[in-house]
Formats: sequence, C-alpha cells, structure tokens
Amino acid sequence: MPEEESRKVVLDRSDFGTWYNDVIELANLSDKRYPIKGMNVWTPYGWKIMRLIDSAIRRECDATGHGEVNFPLLIPKTEFQKEADHIKGFDSEVYWVTHGGLDELDVPLLLRPTSETAMYPMFSLWVRSHNDLPLKTYQIVNTFRYETKMTRSFIRVREIHFFEAHTCHADAEDAERQIREDCAIMDRVARDLCLPYLLVKRPDWDKFAGAVYTIGVDTVMPSMRTLQLGSIHQYHENFSRPYDIKYEGADGEHHHVHQTTYGMSERLVGAIVGVHGDDKGIILPPKVAPIQFVIIPILAKGKTEMVLEEARRLKEEVSAMGYRVHLDERDQRPGSKHYDWEIKGVPIRIELGPRDIEAGTLVFARRDLSTKRTVSRSDLRSETRRAMDDIEVELSGRARSILDNGVRFAGSPEEYRKLSHEGWDGVVKANWCGEMGCAESMERALDRTFLGYPLSDSGEVETSPGGCYECGSPTDKIVLLSRSY
Amino acid sequence: MPEEESRKVVLDRSDFGTWYNDVIELANLSDKRYPIKGMNVWTPYGWKIMRLIDSAIRRECDATGHGEVNFPLLIPKTEFQKEADHIKGFDSEVYWVTHGGLDELDVPLLLRPTSETAMYPMFSLWVRSHNDLPLKTYQIVNTFRYETKMTRSFIRVREIHFFEAHTCHADAEDAERQIREDCAIMDRVARDLCLPYLLVKRPDWDKFAGAVYTIGVDTVMPSMRTLQLGSIHQYHENFSRPYDIKYEGADGEHHHVHQTTYGMSERLVGAIVGVHGDDKGIILPPKVAPIQFVIIPILAKGKTEMVLEEARRLKEEVSAMGYRVHLDERDQRPGSKHYDWEIKGVPIRIELGPRDIEAGTLVFARRDLSTKRTVSRSDLRSETRRAMDDIEVELSGRARSILDNGVRFAGSPEEYRKLSHEGWDGVVKANWCGEMGCAESMERALDRTFLGYPLSDSGEVETSPGGCYECGSPTDKIVLLSRSY
Repeated sequence: MPEEESRKVVLDRSDFGTWYNDVIELANLSDKRYPIKGMNVWTPYGWKIMRLIDSAIRRECDATGHGEVNFPLLIPKTEFQKEADHIKGFDSEVYWVTHGGLDELDVPLLLRPTSETAMYPMFSLWVRSHNDLPLKTYQIVNTFRYETKMTRSFIRVREIHFFEAHTCHADAEDAERQIREDCAIMDRVARDLCLPYLLVKRPDWDKFAGAVYTIGVDTVMPSMRTLQLGSIHQYHENFSRPYDIKYEGADGEHHHVHQTTYGMSERLVGAIVGVHGDDKGIILPPKVAPIQFVIIPILAKGKTEMVLEEARRLKEEVSAMGYRVHLDERDQRPGSKHYDWEIKGVPIRIELGPRDIEAGTLVFARRDLSTKRTVSRSDLRSETRRAMDDIEVELSGRARSILDNGVRFAGSPEEYRKLSHEGWDGVVKANWCGEMGCAESMERALDRTFLGYPLSDSGEVETSPGGCYECGSPTDKIVLLSRSY
Repeated sequence: MPEEESRKVVLDRSDFGTWYNDVIELANLSDKRYPIKGMNVWTPYGWKIMRLIDSAIRRECDATGHGEVNFPLLIPKTEFQKEADHIKGFDSEVYWVTHGGLDELDVPLLLRPTSETAMYPMFSLWVRSHNDLPLKTYQIVNTFRYETKMTRSFIRVREIHFFEAHTCHADAEDAERQIREDCAIMDRVARDLCLPYLLVKRPDWDKFAGAVYTIGVDTVMPSMRTLQLGSIHQYHENFSRPYDIKYEGADGEHHHVHQTTYGMSERLVGAIVGVHGDDKGIILPPKVAPIQFVIIPILAKGKTEMVLEEARRLKEEVSAMGYRVHLDERDQRPGSKHYDWEIKGVPIRIELGPRDIEAGTLVFARRDLSTKRTVSRSDLRSETRRAMDDIEVELSGRARSILDNGVRFAGSPEEYRKLSHEGWDGVVKANWCGEMGCAESMERALDRTFLGYPLSDSGEVETSPGGCYECGSPTDKIVLLSRSY
C-alpha cells in the first residue's frame, strides 16, 4: 500500500471489528486481496511472527519427546470415512480433489481439515508392541476448511496454518497424563505470547467430531467475544478401533491404543493482534517480535556519519546479545519512522543522537506505555533484558484485565440485566441445573452459546453451589456462555 | 519396521535402484506405505534432515535480502490461464479441486505445481514504483504434480517439499545480477551438503514453461544418471506482461518488471542419500545431520553408573559447543547400536568405556571411513571441530570423483563405443553443430537426452572447437547428454 494512503486511516480500537482489519493491513501482516476469499497471503512480517510462534511450539514439543512428522495433505475418501462421527463433523466443510490432469480420479481425495484420517492408517503400521508406546508426534502444516461464514484474517480463514499433536498410549491413564502435559505446554506457549486464557471443557454437543471429550483453550478479546486458541481432545479408543491401531502388551494380548490430540493455529497471531494492540497499531510480545529493538539515529548537521557509525556499533552489540534488532537508516524524519514502527508493534525503540553519544546514554522508548527513559550505555545488557521483561509483565497484566473484566458471574436474569445496563457484554458465568431445556432458554435469553465448563489450572471442573440461572434448582454445576469468533 | 525384519536386508550399492529404496526404509527417512502412491510420510529423522537443509537455504536467502512469504496453495483456474506457455506446460500435471463441501465451485481451483500464477496477481498490487524494486521473495511450501511416471522417494513424488524464490527487477541487467546471486546461493548451500554439481543451460525445447532461459543444477548419482537439484529461470517480461506487473520509473513512465525464479526441492535429500551412502547405510554431511555425534557408553560390570555419568557429562559438553549430540542409553550390545547409527549415517560415533575414562581419552569412529581414532578428552573442542571438517572434505571429494568419472568427452561414435566397452555409462559431453537433425540422431544413438550446455563457474557457456559428434561439421558448441531421474 502506498504510504500516503495508509496515513489517512485513523485507528480506533473502540470499534474493534474495523480496527482489527485496519491494523492488520497497516502493520502489513497479511494481504487479503488474494483472488480466493479467506485464503490470504502471509507477508514477510506476519509470517516471521508466525514462525517465531511455531518455534516456541516446536521447542515445547521437542522438550516433551514429541517427534515432528509431515504427512501428505491429501486423504483418500475411503480412509476419511472410517470413523462415522468424524466424517459427519467435516463432510460439509472439506475441499475435494476430483481430477489429476485430465483424468477423473478413481477415489476422490480431500484436503486435510485435520489429520486424524491421514495419520491413523500409518499409526496402525507403526505401533506393534508396548515398546512403541507412547507414540508422540506433531506436525505444523496447512489445513483447509470450506468456510461459508464471513472470513476474518487469522481467525476464520479457509487455508489455516495449523499445529497438531497426535499421540498413542497404552491405556487411559497414560492418555490422561498426556492431556495434562498438553495443558502445561499451552501454559508455557501462552506465557511467551503474554496471553492469559480459560480452559473450558466443551459441552458434549460441542465436542470435536470423534472425541470422548474436548478441552477448549479460549481467550477473551477486547470486544468481549471469546476466541478459541487451541483445543485438546481425548479420543480413548474411538479412532484406534476403526483404524485398527493395536499393540501387543506385556501380557501377550493385543489392545487398542488410547489416543489424544492437541491443536493450535494462526489464531494465536489473531489473539496477539487483538488483545495487545492499541490505537497506534499492534504491540508484539518480545519473544515473538521479528524486531525486538529498532534503532533510530537522530542525525544532526555535520554529525551524520558519527551517529550512524555509533548506531551500527550499537546494533552489532544488541545483536550479539541474542536480540533481533534493526537499524532504520532510511532518509526520513524520526517522527515518521516512529510512526511506522509503532504500527508494527516493535517493543522498544532506541533513539541515539549526538548528545546521547557525548553523554554515553541512550533513549529507550517503550511501545506499550509510550514512555521514554534515558539509560546508560554501559548498562546496555541489563537494560535490554529489563526492557523485555517489563514489557512482558505489562502486556500480560493488561491482557489479564481484559479477560477478568470479560468474564462475570450472573446468578439470575436480574443480575445479568444489571451488568448489561452498565454496558458490559462479556462471557456470562452461571449455575446450570443440567437440563437441556434450561440450556436452550439460557442461550436464547442471553444471546450467547454454551462455551462449556470452566476448569481450574489443575484441570478440575469448577463447581460452586447455587441455583440454576433459568429454573433456580439447586446445583453446583458452573457454565460459561459467550459470543465467540 | 520390526527390528528383526530389517536386519535381513543386505545393502548393496552396486544395484543402485534397489539399494536406494532399501536404505531409505532402513534409515527410516520416509514411509511410502501411505495409501496414495507418490505421497510419502516424512518420519521425524527424514524431516529433521529436510528442515536443516531448509535452514541453510533460509540463511542464504535472508542474508541476500529475500523476504520469506507464504502464499495460498490453491490457484483459481482463471489466474492460472493467463500465461499461455505456462498453462500448456502444466495442464496435464495438476490436481483440480472442483468441490467445496457438497457444492460445486464456480471456478475450479488447482493445487500449485509452482507459484508463479499465485504470486504474480499480488506482485501486480505490490509493485508500484522503482522504490519497490528489486522485490525479492521466497517461500518453502508443499507443491503438487500429478505424476504418471514411476515414483521414487524424494526424487519423483506427487507432493513435493519445495523452495521457490521469485524476484522482480527494474531491468534485464538487474535480473541477470539476480541469476548470478542465485548461482552463488546454490554454491554455498551445496557446500553444506558436500554436493558438487553442474550448471547446465537447458536447450530451448526443455526450458521451463514461460521462461526465456533455464539453468539446471544437476548432480551425478552413482548410477551415473543425472539428478536435477534445482533450476534458475530468467523470465524477462514473459509473466509481467500478462500479469500486469509494472512500476513507475524515475522517468515518470510505466515499465514492466523483469522477473526471475529459483527452485529447489526435497531432491536435495535424495541426492545426499544417493551420492554419499554406502553398503552400511546413508552418510550425512555434518551440517545437516540431525545427530552429529552419537555417544555409545561401553558398560562394564560394577562401572555402569560411573560410565553413564561420564557419558552424560560428555553429552552436555559437546552440546554446549553447539553440536547436535545424542547419548544412546538403550540396553543393547554396543555392536547392535553401532549398526543402527551407521545405517542412519551419524558422522561420528564416540565410544566411551571405563578404560577411556581412566586414561582421559575418547574413541572417535568416523562413519565415512570406518576408522577409529583415540583422542585426548582435553582436546575435545578441537577434535570435534576437526572431525566435522575432515568428514566434509572426504564426502565432498568422493562426490567430486563420482561426478568427474560420470562426465566424459566423446568426440565421435568410436570414442563413445570405447567408453561403453569399458563399462562406462555416464553423461556424454560432445560437440554439436546446432542442427536439430543431428541432435535427434545423437539422442537416439546414445540412448540419452540433451541435458544442455555446460556453464563455467562464472556462468559462461563452455565452448571448445571440434567436430559435431554426428555430422563432423566444425563447431565450438559443447553439449551434455544424459539419462536423468
């Protein structure tokens, strides 16, 4: 986009939907002008953020003994149909390849919406004995959904950059241990992204196609709508039976394996954009910022070369400390440069002018607080580290406020009306008696859908005695209802 | 594969075709039992090698100012058809998506065989003025070809792990400079893989669909057949005209950009397997070996814990030096472990037993030479470095011999017959008068096809005065003819 044009857009996060689209365009994270709706182009800056997130995920998966694999994109229809619930869940959402060259294919192939049906025929060959278990694999690939709803960059797209872990275990107990490990991985990845989240067990009618149960990982956007960041599924033997994945136990008998999966996607980028951004642009968590420090040389007559030389030295130094740093040598006014890097969310801008050089100082400008601080050049190592840490704390704290404010308990329609009158429009927490009739009434009355049962950090279903929001019957069951992306 | 079964296979590289398939299976680089022919599963070990090669390519592309992008996989038929030669070249080889869910799509979509027609509609939006040039991009993605020929792991597959760089330039001169840069990148990547290669300008009838000219990067396999590792294409304005990619020059006029592309693929893995392997398995160049050092503790009664402790310390030390190291703690005889890691091509095996610990030594066993050397523990840093360097030199040298022996000059049918009687069956280098009739006769008589015109390191077409192989007319044109994968 030509620069003059972009300057006209005024960012206003109070109109979140418009702001979200505008900020992605201004920061140049993704280009949605590709001639297929919902299939967007990853530009270098956006793709670098995604790849840094992928690295964080890979680090956690490798450290927990998962092997990275890469399975074919295409799945024969015949394999796809083996698990009845699964095909029902995806039948209307998959893309079909019917021709190769000018030939019609004997068996139509589908573009993976997720890879259970691609992987499990192979798992059936790979798993033979209890020594092969647990089998822990993951891949980071492109997946496809034929979305008919309105698309939105990173959040609802038709080609999805996707992480999926698939595991096989000897028994239910080991599979449960895997689910806990998945939650711990989520926790560490989310820390790097400064994103707090809710663990929510989905209601049975909303679990993944083929799963015994599904845990959703949801964050709350400034619009107070929930965004599912990931999901963790317990399959038990639901797939290992139709796909015949068995092992010979120490007892000499053959048993079906217990399976789990864990998925995350480019929605993590959408959450970073939405949760952390402001009216100046996006704000990137330091661990996934393609540029963590941008150096702006403040040039003065007769001192240009001296300042540039010092700026280049500074760049080398910061880079040698292991940070991603960029020196902006463009022939533009500093104000115009500041504006550009603010939109792109670079955590720290370092300003360096002749007077700083004389005084042995640097100016650190924080993107998150819009504050400046003069630091001593000799404290560079500790100051850079401190800046990164402080920004993480600030971003995490703000995101936590959004989430905390976004989820409120309403014991009754009266309590909800009060919240609503205050202009609050977030995730409703309420008691529910367990009756489907009450669930339907609650969804209608609140104009929200059941997100599910909130879980504690340790994975226990949260309970609290009270009366059903709808019928008042005593119950300790707690549910969340939300509008979600 | 169960271990007992695998042990029965005897590797014999003199039967190259069988050896190649067997060694891939034994080293567990790829699993071709996926239910679609030519779409194979990347296992963790094979995928790690591929990812290390990708990292080498990324490093070179980033260092030369290319931005990494990621474009959608699907291309609308309408965009694909804009460049006439291009569609003719790929029409019979693409997979077509015709349905989304239960709906027939208005415009059929194809799975990219390469991304010109996906990228260039966007380049037309991205390039506005000479300030946007050069535009240098690359991506590493999955591409698809509906192969009807026999498939072969890494070499001829239907889903291809692919690197493609696409650039736009203000003029032909800058585009030519890019081709030279591509050759330099190839050179640096090939060094990491210890793979020598030929730069060969393809004959006009064999250039890429839509290109002005194509430079093939070919290596010679031990079977003396050539394998194309990469290709570099000069497009001039052949795509920028139909896709309307124009910029406003400093002269205020609008000009079409000049374009180039550069592609490489998972064939690089195929070349590493084929060129470097032996009857014990694959041999990995150190820079792309997932495990560079494997430590085998030699356990002795009463000293098991002591040896293991020391082995773990050693692992930490080697790892801290920046190497990828694995400690094999499996409860197996050392001989059986050696066998496994030889198949998998780990460059150096370090043996460590109670006597080594007492003497302050280690045994380094080289995979490439099958030699052992006792080194002093206190020289660990210099010895590890030296081992990696020495293996690179050895592998590069052997591969150079294969290539040098694989290409021979034959001035006439008599000279070729002599070579042939000696059992030589490689790439024929010959003079050619330039007449198509002679080319066809040569291809028939030699049972080889024109690979093209060999280029010097600096990119000049090689010439040498002589007589046409077929008709004897004087000419300085030199060509290569080969059987290729």
